[in-house]
Amino acid sequence: MAVNTTAQLFSLDNSVFRAYLFYCSLLVLKMMFMSIYTAATRMSKKAFANPEDSAMYKMKPTTNDQVERVRRAHLNDLENIPIFTVAAFVYLMTGPSAWLAQTLFLAFTAARFAHTLVYAVVVVPQPARALAFFVGYAITAYMAIHGALHFMV
Amino acid sequence: MAVNTTAQLFSLDNSVFRAYLFYCSLLVLKMMFMSIYTAATRMSKKAFANPEDSAMYKMKPTTNDQVERVRRAHLNDLENIPIFTVAAFVYLMTGPSAWLAQTLFLAFTAARFAHTLVYAVVVVPQPARALAFFVGYAITAYMAIHGALHFMV
Amino acid sequence: MAVNTTAQLFSLDNSVFRAYLFYCSLLVLKMMFMSIYTAATRMSKKAFANPEDSAMYKMKPTTNDQVERVRRAHLNDLENIPIFTVAAFVYLMTGPSAWLAQTLFLAFTAARFAHTLVYAVVVVPQPARALAFFVGYAITAYMAIHGALHFMV
Repeated sequence: MAVNTTAQLFSLDNSVFRAYLFYCSLLVLKMMFMSIYTAATRMSKKAFANPEDSAMYKMKPTTNDQVERVRRAHLNDLENIPIFTVAAFVYLMTGPSAWLAQTLFLAFTAARFAHTLVYAVVVVPQPARALAFFVGYAITAYMAIHGALHFMV
Repeated sequence: MAVNTTAQLFSLDNSVFRAYLFYCSLLVLKMMFMSIYTAATRMSKKAFANPEDSAMYKMKPTTNDQVERVRRAHLNDLENIPIFTVAAFVYLMTGPSAWLAQTLFLAFTAARFAHTLVYAVVVVPQPARALAFFVGYAITAYMAIHGALHFMV
Repeated sequence: MAVNTTAQLFSLDNSVFRAYLFYCSLLVLKMMFMSIYTAATRMSKKAFANPEDSAMYKMKPTTNDQVERVRRAHLNDLENIPIFTVAAFVYLMTGPSAWLAQTLFLAFTAARFAHTLVYAVVVVPQPARALAFFVGYAITAYMAIHGALHFMV
């Protein structure tokens, strides 16, 4: 059955809307993992940004390569995941094919989990990180371009 | 009265949706404050990132501890507030208890205001900042986990 | 015809909602441009953040002023565009005048494109960047304050 009106698009009976809400939840949890992973790496490397934190170890603030790597992975999430949640919302409003939309949401989510894995957990040589990045990037670009053309004023 | 359909969830008569819109507005304004607070700290410390800015004071770009502290507080907002607006939207779609949802929105907002206060305005010794952080973190995690389970595909 | 109910606000016949979706798409694409512009600048300046990247040029990780400038422009987008998408959504729910809302969305989008142009592409002396920043800032502030007052609990 075609989904034509906004009421139908936003319906909790619309499997694309449910999938959107599910994958957004997973992506939020994935980003939240970066905060504790950064904190854990800071503690294991004893590399803190604030004097009130390093003072607990009787140290001064310092930097560490692995901490900076985890922070870059987190920043890359900040640069890519919030705009995906916006682009996917716009895409949802274009009334896409359920199969295609759900596949794109799943592929984006898997690509972002893979990106963190090969960037900050187990450092895998390129092009592993570049591939994971571009899968997510291409999906967001497709949704945003599709949305811009669909709703052009 | 139970709120069951999406039309009811999105209704402006739904107090949870109204609360969501209200607290999102406050959180946006709170994040906007960080931009002017950074700019004001840069001017008072004469520590600018760009040569075209420092040139107005006949200086070179430089860094300053207090400026970096304000920037870390802002980055912490960027890492936590946009994902809250997504998680709270998903949570809203699960049809939560109005009392619980409004309490969580209020507590998250209060925790983030407190976080900036003890991090960047008046530096309070730990665990003040850690406590403020974890209240907000736990609320977002609860909403995202609840949403992921509710909409699991 | 006045737009009064949420169903009407979210209708794809509501020109303000369509404009919201259109400008959100453009802003997502604009932020995505920053990622490839950073990567292109890193390659042209041979300044990489990760050893696995710089190793392809038989170099060590290093920093570069132009790369840092592009990254600051991108961070400024991260600080301002996601909160705009939230504030504009809240503003949409207040049932604003179609003409005013569409003008504000267009002006914000134009200001953010101008901000990147004068910050990171062609470095224009101040107050070009400050003006572009404050147009966008004032629009987001207006929408968020309007939303907070409208939905105050």
